Amino acid sequence: MAQVFERVALIGLGLIAGSMAHAMKRHKLAGHVAGFARSAETRRAAAEIGFVDSVHDSAAEAVKGADLVVLAVPVGAMGAVAEEIAPHLAPGATVTDVGSVKQAVIDAVGPHLPDGVHFIPSHPLAGTEHSGPYSGFATLFENRWWLITPLDGADEAATARLRRLFEGVGAQVDEMEPGHHDLVLAVVSHTPHLIAYTMVGVADHLRRVSQSEVIKYSASGFRDFTRIAASDPTMWRDVFLTNKEATLDILGRFTEELFVLQRAIRMGDGDHLYEYFTRTRAIRRGIIEAGQDTDAPDFGRARKD
Amino acid sequence: MAQVFERVALIGLGLIAGSMAHAMKRHKLAGHVAGFARSAETRRAAAEIGFVDSVHDSAAEAVKGADLVVLAVPVGAMGAVAEEIAPHLAPGATVTDVGSVKQAVIDAVGPHLPDGVHFIPSHPLAGTEHSGPYSGFATLFENRWWLITPLDGADEAATARLRRLFEGVGAQVDEMEPGHHDLVLAVVSHTPHLIAYTMVGVADHLRRVSQSEVIKYSASGFRDFTRIAASDPTMWRDVFLTNKEATLDILGRFTEELFVLQRAIRMGDGDHLYEYFTRTRAIRRGIIEAGQDTDAPDFGRARKD
Repeated sequence: MAQVFERVALIGLGLIAGSMAHAMKRHKLAGHVAGFARSAETRRAAAEIGFVDSVHDSAAEAVKGADLVVLAVPVGAMGAVAEEIAPHLAPGATVTDVGSVKQAVIDAVGPHLPDGVHFIPSHPLAGTEHSGPYSGFATLFENRWWLITPLDGADEAATARLRRLFEGVGAQVDEMEPGHHDLVLAVVSHTPHLIAYTMVGVADHLRRVSQSEVIKYSASGFRDFTRIAASDPTMWRDVFLTNKEATLDILGRFTEELFVLQRAIRMGDGDHLYEYFTRTRAIRRGIIEAGQDTDAPDFGRARKD
Repeated sequence: MAQVFERVALIGLGLIAGSMAHAMKRHKLAGHVAGFARSAETRRAAAEIGFVDSVHDSAAEAVKGADLVVLAVPVGAMGAVAEEIAPHLAPGATVTDVGSVKQAVIDAVGPHLPDGVHFIPSHPLAGTEHSGPYSGFATLFENRWWLITPLDGADEAATARLRRLFEGVGAQVDEMEPGHHDLVLAVVSHTPHLIAYTMVGVADHLRRVSQSEVIKYSASGFRDFTRIAASDPTMWRDVFLTNKEATLDILGRFTEELFVLQRAIRMGDGDHLYEYFTRTRAIRRGIIEAGQDTDAPDFGRARKD
C-alpha cells in the first residue's frame, strides 16, 4: 500500500497506539512513527518491542514535524495533552484521537488547537481485554469499524487522507455526528461494560458462594462478563465520567426493563419471559447476518477453554 | 474406553442429548442409544443424523430395558415426563437429568420414581447459543464441569457408574448439594443470562439508535450479551420460574451494586469507579489461572469476526 503520512506521532503507547504502529509498519503507511508515553516503563517497552521508530521524552518533542498526531490516551487526559502539544504542531498537520467518547474530547481538545491544524476526532471499535505496550498487534483493526466524527467545516482532503490510513490498517470507516456516536456507544459498549463490571462485583461479594466456585464454574455465561470487566480501569472511569448523560439514560432504561422481568419472575409469568427471550434472539441473528460475528457454536472458541 | 451402560434412553433430543449421543458413540460408552422427543420433526431429524440407534414414538417406549435414562427436556417438563416413564422403568435403572436447576427437578421428578430405581440428578455446565437436534457435537463436554447432586442415601455404585459416563465424554465431575448448586448457578449463569436478555431488549426499544446501528457496531461489548441472549427461550423461562428465589436474591444484590455505580457516575466520583473496576480485574485473572479460559486477546477469536 502507498504511504499515507510521512511522520506519525503516537501520544500514548497502549493497545490501540501499539496496534496502529504494528499495522502501519506492516502496510508501509507511514514514513516514520514517533512515540511518547507518560510512563518511562512504557516508553522503554515500546522502544524494546520496536513498533516505533523513535521514542521521545515529551509529547511536545514527539509531535514535532509530524503530519499526523494520534492522541491515544484516556479520554480524561486528552485536554491536557492537546494543550501541551499545541504550540509544537506543524502547520497543516492532522490531529486525531481514538477516544471512546467524542463530544467530551472535542470540547477538551478543540479549543487548544491552532488554526491551520485539522482536528478530526475518531474512534476505532476494536480492542481486547488487555492493555499496555505489549498488548498491541497488527490485525486488531481488520474488519472492525473506525468511526470518524468530523466537525463542521472539516477539511475534506484531510478527512479523506485520514480515512485512507484507517482503511489501510484494515478498518471500515463510517462518519457520524459526535452526539449520536456517544449515544450509540452508550448502548453497544458503555452500558454493557458497566453491567459486566457490576455483575462481577456482585459475585465477589457473596459469602455463601466462594470465589473459587465462581471461577471454576464461570463457563456458563459469567465468563463473557469477566472478559468485558477486565478492561483498563482508567479508560473506563473516564468513559463513564465523560459520557455521563447517555450512559445514565441507557442505564435508566435498563433498570426499568430489568424490573419488569424481575416482576415476571416473582409473579411466575412464564408467557412474558418466553416472549421477551424470543424477541432478543432476532437481534442476535441480525448480528450474525451483518457479519459482525460467527455462527459457529460458542463463537468457534477452542473447545479446551 | 469400556462400555458403561448397555442401553441409554435419551428423553429430549436437543443440544445436550444430541451431544451426549455423539460423545457416547465416539467413545463407545453405550451399547445402544434409544431416543424420544416430543416433536415429530425432532425425532425425524435425530433419526436422519443418526446419533441415536432407535427413535421411539413415546417416552414410555424409549425407556424400556434401559439401564440409564437421561431426562434432557426443559426443567418445567421434567415432572410430567417422570410420571409418564415411571411405570416402564427397568428395576435397578439409573435416572438422571441435565436440568440447569436442581432442587425444583428433584421435587418434580423424585416422587414419581419407583423404589429400586436410582435417581441421580446432574447438570453439565456446557452449551452454546444454539439448540435443537442439529446443534449437538461430540466434544461439547470436554474439559467442562458436570455437576451431580446426589440425594441422601444415593447408591454409591450407581453414582460411581454415572460419573464414569460423564468422565467418559470428557467432563470433570463435581458433587454438590442441590440448594447450593442453584445458588452458585444463579450467580455464574442465571442472573448473567437475565441481564444479557435485558440489555439486548433495551437496545431493541430505542428510537434514536437504529437496530442496524446496534447490529453494525456490536463488537464493542454488546456482542457477548447477544450471544448469551440467543439461548433457548423455553429452557430459560423454566430456569427463572424454578430457580426463582436464588435469582431474585442475586438480582437484588445486582441492582443495589448498579445503583451505587450509577450514583458515582452522576456525582462524578472517579475514584470510586476506578477502584471498583480494578477489583473486578482480579476475578478475571483468577478465571484464566483456573484454566476456564484462554489469555489470548479477545479469547483467541478468529480476527475476521
